[in-house]
Amino acid sequence: MQSIPGYTYGSPALGPSPLNHQDLELLKASLLFTDDDHAALRQAGEVLADQVEEILDVWYGFVAAHPHLVYYFGGPDGNPSPEYLAAVRKRFGQWILDTCQRPYDAQWLAYQHEIGLRHHRSKKNQTDGFGAAPQVPMRYIVAFIYPITVTLRPFLAKKGHPQEQVERMHQAWFKAVVLQALLWCYPYVKEGDF
Amino acid sequence: MQSIPGYTYGSPALGPSPLNHQDLELLKASLLFTDDDHAALRQAGEVLADQVEEILDVWYGFVAAHPHLVYYFGGPDGNPSPEYLAAVRKRFGQWILDTCQRPYDAQWLAYQHEIGLRHHRSKKNQTDGFGAAPQVPMRYIVAFIYPITVTLRPFLAKKGHPQEQVERMHQAWFKAVVLQALLWCYPYVKEGDF
Repeated sequence: MQSIPGYTYGSPALGPSPLNHQDLELLKASLLFTDDDHAALRQAGEVLADQVEEILDVWYGFVAAHPHLVYYFGGPDGNPSPEYLAAVRKRFGQWILDTCQRPYDAQWLAYQHEIGLRHHRSKKNQTDGFGAAPQVPMRYIVAFIYPITVTLRPFLAKKGHPQEQVERMHQAWFKAVVLQALLWCYPYVKEGDF
Repeated sequence: MQSIPGYTYGSPALGPSPLNHQDLELLKASLLFTDDDHAALRQAGEVLADQVEEILDVWYGFVAAHPHLVYYFGGPDGNPSPEYLAAVRKRFGQWILDTCQRPYDAQWLAYQHEIGLRHHRSKKNQTDGFGAAPQVPMRYIVAFIYPITVTLRPFLAKKGHPQEQVERMHQAWFKAVVLQALLWCYPYVKEGDF
């Protein structure tokens, strides 16, 4: 794996997640997330591995088409920065693979928390040293569950798997996206309310 | 429409939503939610109208199967209250219809905010005067996007509509659930972070 600037998965410098193993198990149960979903995600990882750039093209195209979203890639002058877009893009691509391939353990939880902090004002703009908006509002983190889920399906179907397997991979992806989006919300939420 | 205890949609006593029309439009754009989705939801409302009790059976069955979820229907003695379960159930059934039939306007936004407040400690347990847990944690509000979305599909398919129309209704439902779940999160979020 090439080194990706700002990608610190597994780094001992990361703080632990505020959630423990039991919290995660209860969330997975609430999402009907089972070992079958982990298996389906591993398969999805194989299907998606050589399509990451095309997926990112779709997602970046979606953001670019909405001024209120592209705004979050803009600097103090209001213009989106190609360097910043590119830096985020590399980590976003890796996130697709991590969602499929990583075990959902304490290290994974810690990195989900880090992703949340990086979108929240508590750690925004520290990774790339770029002066984008002071934070991504929580509403868009939850809203993105929809486009990030629905746009993935055609890519899962592209390798000729039976419809039923594509559906299983897609459902697992949907659950994984909801799970991560909600974990990213943690820094936004009032003490004790998460 | 029968009067449902505690159902105060459109009541002048409700506070306004903290979000305005423009906020809603930007959220809808982020969810790819268009007028076609409103039309698909109206159709879904016709399909679902006589299936509300069966849908609620599925959802209540899901909650009942998970002690960490049924907990939120329990009183101070830890036992779920049949009266409380029944009172919530009536409003939950009406929520299915409202999701499909109501215009998403200021009144609708105000009631979404009210629903959020009623799950949050700021207004929890005031509607029915039942001493359930002091609040539903935000994590489960977001997590529920998955089961509330996926379990609805078979009901949308039950009236013999072509697969493509069922899919359109289901996508609209998915968007509407994400939109509402995120609106319900407002009371949980730190000032300025929503």
